[in-house]
Amino acid sequence: MKTAEPTNADTASYPLTARNRVKRRHDRGFYDHETVHKILDASMMCHVSYVIDGQPYCTPTFFWREGTKLYWHGSSASRMLKNQTAQQRVCLTVAFLDSLVLARCGFNHSADYRAVMAFGNAYLVTDPEEKERAGIAMVDRFFPDRTASLRETTAQEMKATSFIAMEIEEASAKIRAKGVADDDEDYELPIYAERIPVKTVIGAPEPCPRLLPGVERPASLQAYSEGRLLEDALTDAYFLQYPAS
Amino acid sequence: MKTAEPTNADTASYPLTARNRVKRRHDRGFYDHETVHKILDASMMCHVSYVIDGQPYCTPTFFWREGTKLYWHGSSASRMLKNQTAQQRVCLTVAFLDSLVLARCGFNHSADYRAVMAFGNAYLVTDPEEKERAGIAMVDRFFPDRTASLRETTAQEMKATSFIAMEIEEASAKIRAKGVADDDEDYELPIYAERIPVKTVIGAPEPCPRLLPGVERPASLQAYSEGRLLEDALTDAYFLQYPAS
Repeated sequence: MKTAEPTNADTASYPLTARNRVKRRHDRGFYDHETVHKILDASMMCHVSYVIDGQPYCTPTFFWREGTKLYWHGSSASRMLKNQTAQQRVCLTVAFLDSLVLARCGFNHSADYRAVMAFGNAYLVTDPEEKERAGIAMVDRFFPDRTASLRETTAQEMKATSFIAMEIEEASAKIRAKGVADDDEDYELPIYAERIPVKTVIGAPEPCPRLLPGVERPASLQAYSEGRLLEDALTDAYFLQYPAS
Repeated sequence: MKTAEPTNADTASYPLTARNRVKRRHDRGFYDHETVHKILDASMMCHVSYVIDGQPYCTPTFFWREGTKLYWHGSSASRMLKNQTAQQRVCLTVAFLDSLVLARCGFNHSADYRAVMAFGNAYLVTDPEEKERAGIAMVDRFFPDRTASLRETTAQEMKATSFIAMEIEEASAKIRAKGVADDDEDYELPIYAERIPVKTVIGAPEPCPRLLPGVERPASLQAYSEGRLLEDALTDAYFLQYPAS
């Protein structure tokens, strides 16, 4: 575990540096914990970038936040994790596509979106207590209190799983949420323009066909109901599990 | 433009190398053009990874495919693009989250997903003809034939836009589509398990409030109708614009 170093946990914003400053469209950039964390906590999947022999890799994976730390996990045998254990630089990105924006010229075609880029050094979680906590959080952050109802994780399974953590050193959020934005004079043209909203929703849950008789869906899964926005379910689950976050 | 080098365009599969081989769960790995391209062509957004001074960056952006080439674009002033113009190594990743999988133990919690990682050298499109074609494709790949109906792009706008291209040197697709997969003995336990489908759909299109009277939604946007899967609309649009692909 990292220990004595100063962290961003006590400040309300991530520091602004050459690395995380939103350069293009800087009016769309945010650095405060509230904005950055809200986007992170609404997502299950992120993309983690890392470098092996000068070649960048970008791997989609699940992650979760604890304070100003991010966690992800995978097989101890995976290339991604083997290369993220020695304080390696990584960039973890989360992005939501909120709409497609069709303007009156090609140049102003755009999208509404919310994205976070977080930078730091990845390290392998070796502290037994932190690893045990991460083993619970990887399930309960998404499905509150579910671990208590599950068959216990074996030592072998725990050994086969690596957890990677990263203290967020720098982060930025970039948000566009304004729909069609044409040049003033273009509004006078007889050209069709629109915003096409996009949303990621939950379908009808499919119980495992091999459930034992009498085993019912627990109330703790109510957040995941058909038609809900996935991000709303994930945000609700997050605050149930981490009420003080 | 890259010219005389051999490309993957004439083969039915991307070559298998140490870089793109799916190591973990190799039964989930695919390298054939058909599987890789189908995932790419169903998506509008990708994550592009690149390296500046040893630090990886992961930027969400729009992209499209032409044969075995991928294109993306952005402001000529952007950090991402400035660092992708000199034959820089990049990894372009597309991922679909198809379901959350709740198993009978923590270790078997998983997800159904489809993902592609594509590797190559990024280069700035400088050939005027290729740049002009890209300027049309960046709109028409998503909204067939739309460019012809738009206010023409100015020379200033074209100058402010950079297009980046990458011949796919290696690519892999990784797919999981099996829902709950518990250890044999765990099926005997009275524990609830399910698959929660996730889908990204189109909302009700919102016409620009400043449309001139009589300007109607063109029939070419019919693919984007409320309730449809975004990936189906994008795939339909792709094959309308690139019927031979």
